[in-house]
Amino acid sequence: MLAQAASRLGFRTHVYADDAGPAFDVAGANSVGPYYNFSRLDDFARTVDVVTYEFENVPVDAAEHLAKYVAVLPGPKALAVAQDRNVEKAFISGLGIPVAPFVTIKDTSDLAAASAGLAAWNGPAILKTARLGYDGKGQITVSSQAELAKAAETFGQVPCVLEQRIGFEFEVSVLVVRGRNGDMAFYDAPRNSHEGGILRRSVVPSGLPVAVEAQARDMAGRIAEALSYVGVLGVEMFWLGADAPEPLMVNEIAPRVHNSGHWTMDACAVDQFENHIRAIAGWPLATTERHSDAEMINLIGQEADDWLQLAGEPDTCLHLYGKREARPGRKMGHINRLKPKSDGPGP
Amino acid sequence: MLAQAASRLGFRTHVYADDAGPAFDVAGANSVGPYYNFSRLDDFARTVDVVTYEFENVPVDAAEHLAKYVAVLPGPKALAVAQDRNVEKAFISGLGIPVAPFVTIKDTSDLAAASAGLAAWNGPAILKTARLGYDGKGQITVSSQAELAKAAETFGQVPCVLEQRIGFEFEVSVLVVRGRNGDMAFYDAPRNSHEGGILRRSVVPSGLPVAVEAQARDMAGRIAEALSYVGVLGVEMFWLGADAPEPLMVNEIAPRVHNSGHWTMDACAVDQFENHIRAIAGWPLATTERHSDAEMINLIGQEADDWLQLAGEPDTCLHLYGKREARPGRKMGHINRLKPKSDGPGP
Repeated sequence: MLAQAASRLGFRTHVYADDAGPAFDVAGANSVGPYYNFSRLDDFARTVDVVTYEFENVPVDAAEHLAKYVAVLPGPKALAVAQDRNVEKAFISGLGIPVAPFVTIKDTSDLAAASAGLAAWNGPAILKTARLGYDGKGQITVSSQAELAKAAETFGQVPCVLEQRIGFEFEVSVLVVRGRNGDMAFYDAPRNSHEGGILRRSVVPSGLPVAVEAQARDMAGRIAEALSYVGVLGVEMFWLGADAPEPLMVNEIAPRVHNSGHWTMDACAVDQFENHIRAIAGWPLATTERHSDAEMINLIGQEADDWLQLAGEPDTCLHLYGKREARPGRKMGHINRLKPKSDGPGP
Repeated sequence: MLAQAASRLGFRTHVYADDAGPAFDVAGANSVGPYYNFSRLDDFARTVDVVTYEFENVPVDAAEHLAKYVAVLPGPKALAVAQDRNVEKAFISGLGIPVAPFVTIKDTSDLAAASAGLAAWNGPAILKTARLGYDGKGQITVSSQAELAKAAETFGQVPCVLEQRIGFEFEVSVLVVRGRNGDMAFYDAPRNSHEGGILRRSVVPSGLPVAVEAQARDMAGRIAEALSYVGVLGVEMFWLGADAPEPLMVNEIAPRVHNSGHWTMDACAVDQFENHIRAIAGWPLATTERHSDAEMINLIGQEADDWLQLAGEPDTCLHLYGKREARPGRKMGHINRLKPKSDGPGP
C-alpha cells in the first residue's frame, strides 16, 4: 500500500524483503535477501534515495547500516524502542505519559519482583515477551504466581514484561504523521476492537470526548517528537473512562503505517500511506481530514473467500492484498464501510 | 492507474506495450512488443485472464487476435467504432442520438460534397482526420472552400470528416461503467474545458440542468448497450443550451477510462479505474457517488515542475505519473481540488 501511494505521487519503489510478497507486484524493482546480509543491503541502498519499512521487526542493525548511506525514515531509534516492550515502556513513561503498571523480567531472578507486582495489583496481569510479539502472539494472562511461573517457562525464560491488566472502556489509536521539518498532522483516532488478539474493527468517529482526543494527540505528538520521528506513527491507547485517575494510557507504539488506519484509504482525501510517503520524501504533509464516517473490518483467513459478496455490498470499499495463501489468522484484506460524516459516536 | 486499481482488489497485472512506460513500475509483469506481433501477443495472452486497454489506438487486429484466446474488454467493436470518426458518427446517429452535422471525405472526390456542406452551414467547420487524432491533433478549422482544400492537402488527402462547428455552452463527458451482466452506473458528468486542444479542467457538479444530465446519461447508456460494452466508456457531449433544438450533441466516444474522470480518484469512494477493473473482471459494480465537489486540472509539460508548491496547497490532491520527460503538451500529472459537496453549480 506504501508502494501504491508512492506511485501515485510519481515515485518509483524498490522493495527489499526476505521473501517475495504482494508488494513485489506493484514495485518497479524487487530484491529478496536476508535482512542481515549487508552486502545485499548495500546493493539495495545504491538504488534508492530514501528507505522506509512497513514492519517493525526489521533488525535495527540493518536499519543502522543502511542509514550510513541513505536516509532511513522513520529512524532506527524508533525501531529500537518499538522492538522491546521494556525499552518502549521506559521511554514512554520517561516522557511523563501514563502506561499500565509493569515489571521488567530480564531473567528468572526478576520473577520474584513480578510476583510481588502481581500480588500488589490484586488482579490478573499479562506476561508478554519483550520482543517479536504481534497479533496477540507472545502474550499469556496470568492470575497467580504459579500461572506466572508456568507462562515464563512456556516462553522459554526469554526477557518479558509483566503488565497489570487494565480495565478500559475501549482502545483507540492515534495516527500521527510527522514531516522532516517537524510539522505534525493527526488523523481522527479510531476505536479498535480485537478478536483473538487480532485487530478486527476500527471505527471513526470513536466516541472519545473531544478534550480526551486532544490529550491523546498531545501524547502521541510528544512521543513522535522525542523520537525525532518522520512518517506515520501509530500509538495505541486505552481509554479508561472520564472518572479514571489516568483517563488515557499508552499500550504500545507502531513505528509504521498502522492497520487501524486502513479506513483512511477511503474516508479521507489523502490516506496514511500517502502522508507517510510525503513525510519521508520531505514533502509538505497533506490534509488528514476525513469526509466520511468509516468502519474498517479486517478479513482474516478464509473470510476473504467472501470477496464476491463483499464486492457487491453498498457503501463498502473492498481491499484484497493478493496474498497467495489464506492461512488462519492471516490478514488477507479489509473492507471499509462508509457513511456520511457525522459528529456523533461512530457507526 | 488501472494497474494500481487492480492491485487494490488483489489482482496482478501484466502490461503489454510497444514501449516501456510508468505502468511498468506498478505491474507484476511487463512485456515490450509491437502491437502487430501476434506471436508476442500469444505469449502475453497465455499469462492473463482478461485483457483491457487504456489507449484507443491499439490496432483492432491485435484486439481481435487476443479475443480468440482470452476475454478482451471492452470488446474490439468499441475500438473499431472509436478509431474512425466516420464510423463513429454513423454509429451514433444510427442510434438516433444527435451529432454535429458532418460530411464524410473518403478521398478527393468527396471534397465537392464537403464544400456544399460548408456553404450550407454558413459558418466555420472543422476538418478532422478520420483516424489517429487526439489532444486537438489532426484538426483544422476552415471557413471557405479554399481553406478546406488546403487543410485536406495538409493532411495528405487521408480520409477525413468535415464537421459543422457547433456553438455550445460547454462540453460535458458522461462516464458510464457497464458490467459483464449489463448493469450500468454513471459518474456525475464533469464540465470540461480545453486549451490548445488539450483537456485543461474538469469540474463537478457541471451546472448541467438535472433533466439534461438524465438525458445525457440515457444517450451514453444507449451507446454502451449498442456496443455490448464492458468497462468505463467516456462520451463527450456538447450542451447547446436549453433553447437549442438539440440541447445535447455527442462529440466523440472514448472506449476507456477518461482523463475527464480523473477527479473520481479523490472525490468518490470508488474511482473510474476500480469500476473499470470490476466491470472487466465480472465483479459487481461499486458506487459511483461522489462525496465532494471537485475540480481536476491537468499538469501539462513543465507545469508539473511546480509539484512542490502544488503538494502544499490545501484541499488539493496531487497525482504525478512518473513519466521520465516533460515534453510540451504532454500530460505529466493532475491535481484534484476538493470542496464539500454542494448541489449548486461547480467550483
